[in-house]
Amino acid sequence: MNPTIELLKSHRSIRKFTDRKIPHELLVELIRAGQAAATSSHVQAYTVIHVKNPANRERIAELAGGQSYVATASDFLVFCADMKRPTEASERTGANVVRGMTEQLLVASVDTALMAQNVAIAAESEGLGICYIGGIRNNPQAISDLLHLPEHVYPVFGMCLGYPAADPDVKPRLPVEAILKEDYYTDDSELVAAFDDAMQHYYSERRGGTKDSNWSRNLTPLFDSKLRAHMREFLTQRGFEMK
Amino acid sequence: MNPTIELLKSHRSIRKFTDRKIPHELLVELIRAGQAAATSSHVQAYTVIHVKNPANRERIAELAGGQSYVATASDFLVFCADMKRPTEASERTGANVVRGMTEQLLVASVDTALMAQNVAIAAESEGLGICYIGGIRNNPQAISDLLHLPEHVYPVFGMCLGYPAADPDVKPRLPVEAILKEDYYTDDSELVAAFDDAMQHYYSERRGGTKDSNWSRNLTPLFDSKLRAHMREFLTQRGFEMK
Repeated sequence: MNPTIELLKSHRSIRKFTDRKIPHELLVELIRAGQAAATSSHVQAYTVIHVKNPANRERIAELAGGQSYVATASDFLVFCADMKRPTEASERTGANVVRGMTEQLLVASVDTALMAQNVAIAAESEGLGICYIGGIRNNPQAISDLLHLPEHVYPVFGMCLGYPAADPDVKPRLPVEAILKEDYYTDDSELVAAFDDAMQHYYSERRGGTKDSNWSRNLTPLFDSKLRAHMREFLTQRGFEMK
Repeated sequence: MNPTIELLKSHRSIRKFTDRKIPHELLVELIRAGQAAATSSHVQAYTVIHVKNPANRERIAELAGGQSYVATASDFLVFCADMKRPTEASERTGANVVRGMTEQLLVASVDTALMAQNVAIAAESEGLGICYIGGIRNNPQAISDLLHLPEHVYPVFGMCLGYPAADPDVKPRLPVEAILKEDYYTDDSELVAAFDDAMQHYYSERRGGTKDSNWSRNLTPLFDSKLRAHMREFLTQRGFEMK
């Protein structure tokens, strides 16, 4: 296992940070590393907002569901899917531009995720810890207002970055035999059952852990109510109409 | 710049491969590195189909728009967003499961992209070359049939992997000043204009290059017709209803 693969496999979310600040030049370098990720047809359909204003950091911490580390991490970035820049650029060449296609939402969201994951890895390679903040989709319109996001730009997720003040365990993953399938999709419910047992054990044994749960039971909040049921209307209003 | 950041910044798509085969153990190791990426609420909403059947490789190469390297690369993977596994696991615990929310499509697509980007980086760290194949969304239903994908699973993109038989240039990216913004979204059309000049120069000067174009003009096919206009109906039929 080479050191890069070792780094990838050692990822865990960091939510406690020291007071040490990330030098601005390093932050810029991380974004450049992000931009080097593959991008669909070279479209680079993303913009990153570096939230420095402390009041906005506090507000986003609240809007994301009371995640205080959004305010306390050295830096906080909001990764936005951006179809405004490329559609307007194309329009300036005289091209006839169609907006709001489902495909464009996918392209922009995937582009943004690929670039963010490069930023995460670059950060971790420099000894930083990171935590993705999907919770900004709890209140995407309020976040968009705070950051002055125009139409055809939407906040996909945030990311806290800083020097780690904690060393949490690496969380187990589903067996690779469930994820990687040969030629055809096959049922993997037995592997899921085995993973549930492993997670039950992990939750009871980990440092300070007394949680009685497993993977399947932990998923309940994701599916048992209409999680972030506003997303369709929000995206439609922002110009991502999913046509 | 540390070696990992250097690796990230040296990415370019590889479309020509030697005959050397990737050892199976290495491929599995790449997937494990992929699984270590952050995942929303631990949901791990992805499945990777390793397409080994040569006839299916040929067929996918065609369906993806005549991309022969899909058939000729050492290995070809189809990264699928998978909401079947977690929703069924949740259901088995007795939870009341809601499907088809727009948020769930985003979660699964982003989860898949984060894990794929880790696979890409792990592969490149081992000297392999990769190329994402968004073209599988040209004919997503035919691909889904070929791979026996069930409902609540959709193919997001493919990836060719192999030992590089070419050494193409690293393609320039938009100025970091356009991508990284402080506190608020701001206009960057002047930076785009400068980038258009840089790309025009790049296309005329690169090895074997005589192409007269720039970034903005290259975007035309993405927006001037209804690119992959079938995606909405396809996703709806697969159970991703974007409610």
